[in-house]
Amino acid sequence: MRVRNRADARKRLENSPVVFLQPKDNKGKWREIFGNNNPIHLEIGSGKGKFIHTLAEKNPNINFIAMEAQPTVLTFLLDKVEETHRENLKLISGNAEDLLEYFADEEVDQLYLNFSDPWPKTRHEKRRLTYHTFLSRYEVILNGDKKIVQKTDNQGLFEYSLMSYAKYGYIFNKLSLDLTNSAYEEDNIHTEYEDKFIKKGNRIYMVEAIKVK
Amino acid sequence: MRVRNRADARKRLENSPVVFLQPKDNKGKWREIFGNNNPIHLEIGSGKGKFIHTLAEKNPNINFIAMEAQPTVLTFLLDKVEETHRENLKLISGNAEDLLEYFADEEVDQLYLNFSDPWPKTRHEKRRLTYHTFLSRYEVILNGDKKIVQKTDNQGLFEYSLMSYAKYGYIFNKLSLDLTNSAYEEDNIHTEYEDKFIKKGNRIYMVEAIKVK
Repeated sequence: MRVRNRADARKRLENSPVVFLQPKDNKGKWREIFGNNNPIHLEIGSGKGKFIHTLAEKNPNINFIAMEAQPTVLTFLLDKVEETHRENLKLISGNAEDLLEYFADEEVDQLYLNFSDPWPKTRHEKRRLTYHTFLSRYEVILNGDKKIVQKTDNQGLFEYSLMSYAKYGYIFNKLSLDLTNSAYEEDNIHTEYEDKFIKKGNRIYMVEAIKVK
Repeated sequence: MRVRNRADARKRLENSPVVFLQPKDNKGKWREIFGNNNPIHLEIGSGKGKFIHTLAEKNPNINFIAMEAQPTVLTFLLDKVEETHRENLKLISGNAEDLLEYFADEEVDQLYLNFSDPWPKTRHEKRRLTYHTFLSRYEVILNGDKKIVQKTDNQGLFEYSLMSYAKYGYIFNKLSLDLTNSAYEEDNIHTEYEDKFIKKGNRIYMVEAIKVK
């Protein structure tokens, strides 16, 4: 990755046609923005974006949206997209609390939650991205079987998430308590954090949760 | 534990008033047999019975039934019961396939599945004690929130069981991916296998699954 001064981050993001700093303006218009009717997959908390960029390269017929709360972090992924000129990857700056302002009902086809902040303290439960208020937002913007794919190395967050999904009526399509050593690893695309955690010897947990009617 | 010749096992079991080799005869009569209306907790596959015997000692107001497929294995637990004269623990020889012949609808209040055979091969899926046909039997004999408490050190069985429970409409009351090092360990009663697996350094998984309407 190119090393660059992050001081001009905001300016770069503002001037880029692939970055959307005001995603509210595009609610209900994402297919229009991509210029096709391909499915839309959204990663919440994309970080430096290695995961979603690789996924976008491997799946040209799926549209990807990388959402990140810290705008400056998006510049790392912007570097990649400017190099590869990927058409099926857009970047948005936003918060999961405001998802309903960014996406119309059932506008998204799949969700990725990778190594989300575990918020281990009970008093911070509401901030965990699998707390029921978040699940209810996901349910609105997701269509079909409302698939959520989650990975984490945090045992507590994973235990909590499984309980939360089941309570909210989700079932589990895939589930691994040791992704790195599982059959799913073959198709698994690592995030930056995942590489780091595997090196430390941490177990990676994965679940694919779907809602069937 | 006393060492004894297991050759006379059958005879001992036949002559014991706490052992029921033909549990079908007592379907719908278990409260009568215990002589009270206390809740009935059933362990499927009790092995040598350390877990359920300790549980029975700690909970005199709950009735416990230890079920084991191999009759001779029951003699280990029979040794204990003959020493302690526990009134709230009965032993039955039986198979989980035949549960509906042993228990009337909603006759059981809670179920324990401890370190059940993982049957790792896909073609043996139907034999796993959390396969949907077993869950459907448990649903019939259990009452209230139909609580199942499961422990295992087998990662594959635990992954499978979580998926199976959720698919069958269960939610998770408690869930630990490392029981030994969790807050639940304080009240956790070890089975013989659990002690052995902990010594080997295996992780113990635990889930408390309930069905809410």
